[in-house]
Amino acid sequence: MSATQAYAAQTPTTPLTPFSFERREPGPRDVKIEILYCGVCHSDIHQVRDEWGGSIYPMVPGHEIVGRVTAIGDQVKKFKVGDIAGVGCFVDSCRSCPNCVAGLEQYCDNGMVGTYNGREKITNLPTYGGYSTQIVVDEQYTLTISPNLPLEGVAPLLCAGITTYSPLRHVGVGKGHKVGVLGLGGLGHMAVKFAAAFGAEVTMLSTSKSKEADAKRLGAHHFALTSDPATMKELANSFDFILNTVSAQHDYATYLDLLRTNGTMIVVGVPPTPSKVPAFNLIMKRRSIIGSLIGGIKETQEMLDFCAAHNIVSDVEVIPVQEINEAYERMLKGDVRYRFVIDIASLK
Amino acid sequence: MSATQAYAAQTPTTPLTPFSFERREPGPRDVKIEILYCGVCHSDIHQVRDEWGGSIYPMVPGHEIVGRVTAIGDQVKKFKVGDIAGVGCFVDSCRSCPNCVAGLEQYCDNGMVGTYNGREKITNLPTYGGYSTQIVVDEQYTLTISPNLPLEGVAPLLCAGITTYSPLRHVGVGKGHKVGVLGLGGLGHMAVKFAAAFGAEVTMLSTSKSKEADAKRLGAHHFALTSDPATMKELANSFDFILNTVSAQHDYATYLDLLRTNGTMIVVGVPPTPSKVPAFNLIMKRRSIIGSLIGGIKETQEMLDFCAAHNIVSDVEVIPVQEINEAYERMLKGDVRYRFVIDIASLK
Repeated sequence: MSATQAYAAQTPTTPLTPFSFERREPGPRDVKIEILYCGVCHSDIHQVRDEWGGSIYPMVPGHEIVGRVTAIGDQVKKFKVGDIAGVGCFVDSCRSCPNCVAGLEQYCDNGMVGTYNGREKITNLPTYGGYSTQIVVDEQYTLTISPNLPLEGVAPLLCAGITTYSPLRHVGVGKGHKVGVLGLGGLGHMAVKFAAAFGAEVTMLSTSKSKEADAKRLGAHHFALTSDPATMKELANSFDFILNTVSAQHDYATYLDLLRTNGTMIVVGVPPTPSKVPAFNLIMKRRSIIGSLIGGIKETQEMLDFCAAHNIVSDVEVIPVQEINEAYERMLKGDVRYRFVIDIASLK
Repeated sequence: MSATQAYAAQTPTTPLTPFSFERREPGPRDVKIEILYCGVCHSDIHQVRDEWGGSIYPMVPGHEIVGRVTAIGDQVKKFKVGDIAGVGCFVDSCRSCPNCVAGLEQYCDNGMVGTYNGREKITNLPTYGGYSTQIVVDEQYTLTISPNLPLEGVAPLLCAGITTYSPLRHVGVGKGHKVGVLGLGGLGHMAVKFAAAFGAEVTMLSTSKSKEADAKRLGAHHFALTSDPATMKELANSFDFILNTVSAQHDYATYLDLLRTNGTMIVVGVPPTPSKVPAFNLIMKRRSIIGSLIGGIKETQEMLDFCAAHNIVSDVEVIPVQEINEAYERMLKGDVRYRFVIDIASLK
């Protein structure tokens, strides 16, 4: 066993505080990783505060993990000591259902094992995430990462990156497509980078004029203020795809109207209560709405390799772990451009 | 001009009554059709009663028209006098937008011209539908029909048929797919026939146990009572596609849960108010919802040819036009198996 320093939530209503626990020694197929950076995802807040129910305490959040391999099991093939490795939203799945076999472990019919707030398959012990000094993960659920990219900007690729990359690839976004990205936050800023990198003409759809310069710097070709009726009228029936990253309550119909015939709205944000969808808005132009959840291991690796080849990382604000509670409050106000990343050196 | 007998609504709140008007003489590209049968669509009631707004009175409803060609313009190539011809939901469109060029006239960017309750492009005169003795239509918007099928059963193919055929083809339903059909009415009974003919394993999803025998006679392999929680639990994550024909208010989420990973719910019914869609139900299995509106002329012809080859027609109850008001009331109660069709001989 290996002593690990961390920050944990002890209850849904108290701040995160220092916490120590033991990681298992690496088994034959395990990789032991000294964590360097861990991104802070909005879902960390939801789970810390038990907003989705079923939270397990103490909880060590964090599923955007980048670090250095310090030990490997004797059957490990993908890694050697000293390599840079990544861990995303899950650390195991059943490995035998059709989705797992197809490389879609995120949709595992028997339930993937979350990197934190989950339970290990064999021991049933709670999983602890990346707000910690080290982690031990089966190499099959561990990603290889190019050392050439700034690693603090790589961490959020493991969740925010793959969450936007996967659906854009799934629906086939590319040259000649007009793509709208709704919401400029952790997910939205990655969606802009990927859609532009895939060759699409990208429009940032936002309620905040102040985001225009940033959106264009990130690669958006156009900026549209969604609160302006004239702009919305002009954009009606114009997009092939809209990637909707908004988790606040909002009206899907307003944005469905911006899709042309056969257009698709991709939903990756989860508003607190169901959004209303008028069938008419779908039927009159054969529009569709599709949901998407992160990505499988194979596609996550593909995404990381794509980012290394195209020099894509997340725009981040690096914080020491001691500022995590304040960071949560700032995230809830949208006050981060565009992802907090914890420098895990601050835990030592 | 040519005197035409019809039944028309004079106001949104009065019964349909006898009405006479003049059809134009056929132009060079027109086909003049003596109407034999006209199906009665639920949208006839919506428009007669101005439930969608903008209704034009007097209104002669009817867009499921089958008849015999009695005259043709001198440039007409597809038809000769004596042929059986059909007219569906629209009689014109802009012919130049990308959708029209692609054979998707139903999504014409400039608006298709409805067979009734529309306005002719050049004259701006109201269009009158198939509850009438004859109609004159550009051959480009007229379908050829095999004389080998019972024509009263062919009439509803022009709307109910293509409305279900088109999306099942668009999403690629075929062998190896599990398809649920939600709602056994005019649309649902055609959806069962087509999905089965395409090789899928078809389940009728219904709130009414009394429909089981009929569903199986129509070609459904299974029947599921959606009001039974145990049945719904058993069917969770099992369908590749659900064709949702229900126009009454209902909860999309209940049926989305029945879709497996990558499953799609096709929406062709328009509930009176928007349905609620929880993003979570879409995201967790990469499910989608797609709308679909009738079909283009090319695909409608393909569907009619498919029906002729596979001996598919609608199950109908033939009525004289004098019973149309009573038929509307019975339709609103779901009391028809599965489509009323007017025998236009009753108008003469």
